[in-house]
Amino acid sequence: MTQDPQHILVNTLKRLLRRNSRPHLRKIVNRAHPVDLARAFPALSLPQQQNLFGLIRNPESQGILLTELDRDVLQTFTAALPLPNLIHIMERLPEDDVADLVGQLPEDTGQALLKGMKRQQSKDIGDLLRYDEDSAGGIMVPGFIALPESTTVRDAIRQLQKAHSDVEMTFYLYVIGAHERLAGVCSLRELVTAKPEIPLSAIMTREIFTVQADTDQEDVARMVARYDLLAIPVVDTEQRMLGVVTVDDVIDIIREEATEDILKMAGAGDDFVETKSVLSSIRIRLPWLLASCAGGVAATFIIGYFEPTLERLIYLTAFIPVIMGMGGNIGTQSATIVVRGLAMERIQTQRLAPVVLKETAVGGILGFVYGALLGAVAHAGYALWRLGLVVALAVIFTMTLAAGIGALLPMSFARFKIDPAVATGPFVTSAIDILSLTLYFALANLFFSF
Amino acid sequence: MTQDPQHILVNTLKRLLRRNSRPHLRKIVNRAHPVDLARAFPALSLPQQQNLFGLIRNPESQGILLTELDRDVLQTFTAALPLPNLIHIMERLPEDDVADLVGQLPEDTGQALLKGMKRQQSKDIGDLLRYDEDSAGGIMVPGFIALPESTTVRDAIRQLQKAHSDVEMTFYLYVIGAHERLAGVCSLRELVTAKPEIPLSAIMTREIFTVQADTDQEDVARMVARYDLLAIPVVDTEQRMLGVVTVDDVIDIIREEATEDILKMAGAGDDFVETKSVLSSIRIRLPWLLASCAGGVAATFIIGYFEPTLERLIYLTAFIPVIMGMGGNIGTQSATIVVRGLAMERIQTQRLAPVVLKETAVGGILGFVYGALLGAVAHAGYALWRLGLVVALAVIFTMTLAAGIGALLPMSFARFKIDPAVATGPFVTSAIDILSLTLYFALANLFFSF
Repeated sequence: MTQDPQHILVNTLKRLLRRNSRPHLRKIVNRAHPVDLARAFPALSLPQQQNLFGLIRNPESQGILLTELDRDVLQTFTAALPLPNLIHIMERLPEDDVADLVGQLPEDTGQALLKGMKRQQSKDIGDLLRYDEDSAGGIMVPGFIALPESTTVRDAIRQLQKAHSDVEMTFYLYVIGAHERLAGVCSLRELVTAKPEIPLSAIMTREIFTVQADTDQEDVARMVARYDLLAIPVVDTEQRMLGVVTVDDVIDIIREEATEDILKMAGAGDDFVETKSVLSSIRIRLPWLLASCAGGVAATFIIGYFEPTLERLIYLTAFIPVIMGMGGNIGTQSATIVVRGLAMERIQTQRLAPVVLKETAVGGILGFVYGALLGAVAHAGYALWRLGLVVALAVIFTMTLAAGIGALLPMSFARFKIDPAVATGPFVTSAIDILSLTLYFALANLFFSF
Repeated sequence: MTQDPQHILVNTLKRLLRRNSRPHLRKIVNRAHPVDLARAFPALSLPQQQNLFGLIRNPESQGILLTELDRDVLQTFTAALPLPNLIHIMERLPEDDVADLVGQLPEDTGQALLKGMKRQQSKDIGDLLRYDEDSAGGIMVPGFIALPESTTVRDAIRQLQKAHSDVEMTFYLYVIGAHERLAGVCSLRELVTAKPEIPLSAIMTREIFTVQADTDQEDVARMVARYDLLAIPVVDTEQRMLGVVTVDDVIDIIREEATEDILKMAGAGDDFVETKSVLSSIRIRLPWLLASCAGGVAATFIIGYFEPTLERLIYLTAFIPVIMGMGGNIGTQSATIVVRGLAMERIQTQRLAPVVLKETAVGGILGFVYGALLGAVAHAGYALWRLGLVVALAVIFTMTLAAGIGALLPMSFARFKIDPAVATGPFVTSAIDILSLTLYFALANLFFSF
């Protein structure tokens, strides 16, 4: 079995930590990317983590490592880190990362940290913390370079040389017009290739995408992905710039949102819990299973109600799982296609009727295929044409309705601004289970009564 | 109901097309972003599409519009577009986009297009087409700026001014050392802020992430996301640069791969099919349902085998759906968490035993909770302690095993380099269905026989 590099790194670190071979460790730790060291942290004990962390020379790398830790690992680790060290590291990180970290720390640690940092930085981070963490304001960096539109290219380059090197990912220069409003943007490329004496207003692009501080981060990510942007300015209602959302944060959002949707669809929470304890996993998964359990109990009542029929026609039992299964599966397919289609903007909320009709048609045709197949199986197995017919019709009706419901529920959820990913879980399956059982027994009563 | 801007755009375009009010149309078409126009295309007829497309002034915008169309819409539209027009447009697009388009067109159209384009560009695109479309080579742009390390900052800026403006997303300047090997990278920011007379070798960063042309695009995307890169150079085995993968393409890959995983988990294909016809939807969804159908037929045999037991104890039937449902749902939860964890590198393939054990523990504890609950329901409903006990034990065993299997299958798939997303579908559910039924009836036979 080949080992991936991350696995090799963890094993090497562990071996060297056991031997306490500090010169080797120091070399590896300062050559590895802090992101990779952060991934190794959960596999190490707290003293091992502290040992490694102390060997990192560059406080900025220490900071990047901290930003990449999971909440629980981060809390344990920082609780054991002296506050002055933490402050020293934080002062070298971009404000949005510090704000994220503070949001993950216990409140008193966060407050102590902010109090200890330089005044301006602490104020900027405090401002960021006021925004919802899932909004543009919560993910923006307050550091950017903005100059008046009359500035010449020569002066702009000079300003650029003077600007703090901690301005993140500088590839655009923002241009400010009358009333402090954002007027346009220049790329560094344009700046470098323009004549030194002309003003920025002559080379800037005036058509510029912006978002408000309260824009949902998912919408920000969608705009950046849609229009291939590297950064998008965040403005207030007067078009004055507050900060910039950069593409590296957008990538994280896109991955997080996909994870959230996937986990929600399976009723496994909305945040990644693998590294969490067994107990918190249980707490997250219990409610969804409760919904499915309630659906199951409803099914026992339906079967109980039809018990006289079943007693007479015991072979009906054999087809309960396959009818429920086919309905559940095609319903999940339809729901998943609609949920992902909505997230990717491939389906518009307004097109409810055509989407539901198309899925129902797909369900109907597939229902005929599998209805015929399973009806034939039933007829062959029990030599009863009535059973074959009941099974076939039950499969056809169930699959048609299941596909329709699977599409209808998330579309309706989206219309009412409820997250459609929730709809693929127990709602769809329980509704389909109850429907398919009732249909099956009703058909059986009908066909076996004459 | 509020309408989203995209919906308003489509309606406005349709209304103006019906009225054939060309001045209005021209204004809207040239103000809208070509990406948004592309999204409107599927809702329009071919003559309407042609009408709109002809009103776009800038051939580059026409090109961007084409790159954003779905394959079927693109093929119909380009089939009706005169070849010289198409060539004129393609010559203004980045090579990787043209290569993508050519890959989606019928082979003869693609060949004719390449033959008609300028020689160098046509050669570059032909080179790109030789790489697997899911590899770094298939998504890179061959245009980049690379200069020898002895070049001074002043000369580098001059070169930048001379370079073609069609070099995509320039924010890095690559530096070439001995034997044409990639030696380092400078950001434009560093270039602008450095003294004009020093050589690039003095300011460049030497530690640089690279990928090979055959690196899988998913691995490229993971590196870019992990290390917050804006672009990553693609090199050959001698470290000579072949091209650059830019962050905007990485975002598309991340979204596509998430969609692929989500659809695979629900057995709904691996590419988005919403815009495709009912028939192609059916073709994609049929095989997965067949696997689920086979599992269902197996269940009929198991129930048939235990028919004598069922005849004697008809009330056992009522709990078949809830036992199968609880097993299926917890199995799906575990499988989903593992599949997404692997994709996000939160779970390492090597840690098979701890991951499976943890999921089994979660399944066991949740099994006890729901086993007790459903056992009590059974006892209360039928006043039979034996039934209560059988249901409780069946739920406990089923949920424990289901969670373990749900984790084990994708972990094993990943070890053998099979896509784990496939494992969450019919394999997991069918295996669990058969297991839970057998367990339930075996327990019933055991407890009701004395």
